[in-house]
Amino acid sequence: MSGYELSSRFEASVGSTWSAGHSQIYPELVRLAADGLVEAGEPGPRGRKTYAVTAAGRDAVQAWLADTEPDRTVRDEAALRTFFLWLMTPEAARDHVQDELDAAEQSLDGLRLLAARRRPATPAERSQRIALEAGLRTTQARVGWARWALERLDDQAGRDDHPPG
Amino acid sequence: MSGYELSSRFEASVGSTWSAGHSQIYPELVRLAADGLVEAGEPGPRGRKTYAVTAAGRDAVQAWLADTEPDRTVRDEAALRTFFLWLMTPEAARDHVQDELDAAEQSLDGLRLLAARRRPATPAERSQRIALEAGLRTTQARVGWARWALERLDDQAGRDDHPPG
Repeated sequence: MSGYELSSRFEASVGSTWSAGHSQIYPELVRLAADGLVEAGEPGPRGRKTYAVTAAGRDAVQAWLADTEPDRTVRDEAALRTFFLWLMTPEAARDHVQDELDAAEQSLDGLRLLAARRRPATPAERSQRIALEAGLRTTQARVGWARWALERLDDQAGRDDHPPG
Repeated sequence: MSGYELSSRFEASVGSTWSAGHSQIYPELVRLAADGLVEAGEPGPRGRKTYAVTAAGRDAVQAWLADTEPDRTVRDEAALRTFFLWLMTPEAARDHVQDELDAAEQSLDGLRLLAARRRPATPAERSQRIALEAGLRTTQARVGWARWALERLDDQAGRDDHPPG
């Protein structure tokens, strides 16, 4: 697989759980090759470098999976900003939530396309389908939340305009 | 507010969107004070240092909120591991999903306690309630996903034990 193919497949599979740009993929492949975890294969079309995982590389993945607890550190800047809606103007607060809605809907469209693509046939595809389902459900929840939050902000704005008398 | 109080309140509010340990809070307060974004107040009980946000500090938060798009980089190691269930033994795969279920249920319990605590009264509390709702809904979705995934893994294991024919 070439770096370009890898980057595309990365984005279309684990991309919903881990961000990595093209610019990170190439130096990482060079590092992995230096450590013997991937190896250069036959040059691809137009002389592109290709790589395949080695036995040591697959062992390293399995050691990582068997290792300890996953790191549950959370870094969700968009969600963090929501705590500070009250420091924004009402318009900026609404824009923030609308951006969250747009981002979640766009993400959901992509995940639904992936899910519809084909019935999982191999063990790897069955795992991907299970992982994808997590993305589908949490993204659907984000869409529902953003719609609810927009209504709530509009209610608050309405109440502020017409204080109960 | 003392560093200890800040750390506790951080954990109980934005903690579901951004991880920060006690060990990070104190040096960060020193840095913020050096930059004039917080200032030392009257010593608290037992001579504890206390800090209050300055006008410049609040301006800095508002500048951050008004600034550009939030960083939507995703780093969810637990979700990433799910793509590799097929490289685990069936027992390890089930354990991974069960751990996800346990973590999500524990997180959901904490968020529900927070939501039940009191009716939001101030603008800050209303924003917190909206942010909390995002946590409640996505965490509920993770609980639902993990239960679904356990059933699916058990179905697959059952099919592997008794191939059709």
